[in-house]
Amino acid sequence: MKKVGVVLSGCGVYDGAEIHETVLTLLALARQGAEAVCFAPDKSQSDVINHLTGELMAETRNVLVEAARLARGKVQPLSQAVAEDLDALIVPGGFGAAKNLSSFARSGSDCQVDSALKNLALQLHEAGKPLGFMCIAPAMLPKIFDFPLRLTIGTDIDTAELIEEMGGEHVPCPVDDIVVDEDNKIVTTPAYMLAQDIAEAATGIDKLVERVLVLAQ
Amino acid sequence: MKKVGVVLSGCGVYDGAEIHETVLTLLALARQGAEAVCFAPDKSQSDVINHLTGELMAETRNVLVEAARLARGKVQPLSQAVAEDLDALIVPGGFGAAKNLSSFARSGSDCQVDSALKNLALQLHEAGKPLGFMCIAPAMLPKIFDFPLRLTIGTDIDTAELIEEMGGEHVPCPVDDIVVDEDNKIVTTPAYMLAQDIAEAATGIDKLVERVLVLAQ
Repeated sequence: MKKVGVVLSGCGVYDGAEIHETVLTLLALARQGAEAVCFAPDKSQSDVINHLTGELMAETRNVLVEAARLARGKVQPLSQAVAEDLDALIVPGGFGAAKNLSSFARSGSDCQVDSALKNLALQLHEAGKPLGFMCIAPAMLPKIFDFPLRLTIGTDIDTAELIEEMGGEHVPCPVDDIVVDEDNKIVTTPAYMLAQDIAEAATGIDKLVERVLVLAQ
Repeated sequence: MKKVGVVLSGCGVYDGAEIHETVLTLLALARQGAEAVCFAPDKSQSDVINHLTGELMAETRNVLVEAARLARGKVQPLSQAVAEDLDALIVPGGFGAAKNLSSFARSGSDCQVDSALKNLALQLHEAGKPLGFMCIAPAMLPKIFDFPLRLTIGTDIDTAELIEEMGGEHVPCPVDDIVVDEDNKIVTTPAYMLAQDIAEAATGIDKLVERVLVLAQ
C-alpha cells in the first residue's frame, strides 16, 4: 500500500487548508487503495479569519492543532516527516498554503517556503517520488526547486505572472484537468482556484491523485 | 434542481460537525444534481476541543462562524431556514450534533434538541419531505418526533439503548448501508459511528443522499 504524505496548513479556506480539497484528496487516496499520512507545521497561523464575514479575528490558532480537525486527530508535526517513509506527497490549497506554508499571500514572488516543507519536497524529488500540488499551492513550487517546472494554478493571470517571475512555467488549465511535469513527476490542478462547486473540484483532484499514484509506482 | 438543507454544528468531529461526513454529503448532493443550502445555529459552541490532544481548550467559538469554514462562507443562521424553500434536510454527525444541536452528549435520553432544528424537521416532515440523519445525529430523532421511528446509529449498544429509551426503534446497520423508515421518509446511516476510513463512510453517505433525493421526488 502506497503511503502518501498530505501536508495541511490549518482548517478553512481563508486561513488554512481548503477543507473540501483536503477531504476530496483523502477520499481519492482511500478509494485508490493508498494510505494518507497527514502532516502540518506546529506553529501559529498567520491569521485567523471569520469565514462568515471575511474579517480578521482577534485570536491566535495553531496550524497543527487546527489541521487535526481535518485529520480527525491523526496528524503529525511536519518537521517529523521522513522522506524515506513516503511514496509521494500531496499539498492541498487554501490560503493556508500562501500564509502558513509560505509567505506568498504577503510577499508574492519574494515569498519564502516553510523550510520543513521545502526540505521534504526536495528529498522526495531527489528520490524520484512524485509530488501533487493543487489550487494556490503550486505557487510555492518555483521557490522549492531552482529549475523551471511546468505547473498550473488555473487561469488567473496575475498569479500566473508571479509564478513566471519566480521561474516557473505556468500552463493554463481547466478545473477538471491536471498539468503534469513528467520529467519531474510533479502534478498540479486548479481545484478551487477555478471550481464553481465541489463536484468540479473533485474531478481534477481525483485525476491528480490517480496520476500521483501511477507516478509513485 | 432539488434544494437540500444541510444543518451544520460547527467544524470538527469532537466539538462540531464531522468534517468528512459534511464534505461527503456536499459532494454526493452536487454529483447527484442537487443544491445544498447550509445552515447552522448562531450560538456559542458547547465547548472547544483540541483535536490533536482531545483536551478542552479555554476558548469560545461560535457554531455558525466555525460552520462557515466547512461551507466556504455560504451558511445561514438555522433560525432563518424556511421549510417551504427546501425539498429535504440532511444532518451530518460529529459531536456537534450531540453538543450544539442537542444536549445528548451531556443529558442522554433526557436531552433537548435545538428548537429551530426541531421545528424545521417537523415542518418538513409534515410537508411529506424526507430527512437524512447520519452518525450520532439520529439520536436526536426520538426527541423531535413523538412517535416511534426506525433508525440506526450503527451497532453501539449503549447508544442504541438510549435511543430505545427515548422511544426510537434502533436497527443495527453496517457502515456501508442505510436504514429507511419508509412511512416517515427518514433515512439514517452509521458513517463514522462505524467507519474505519473515509471510503467506508462515503459508501453509506452516498446511499443516504441518493435515497433522500429519491424520496424528495
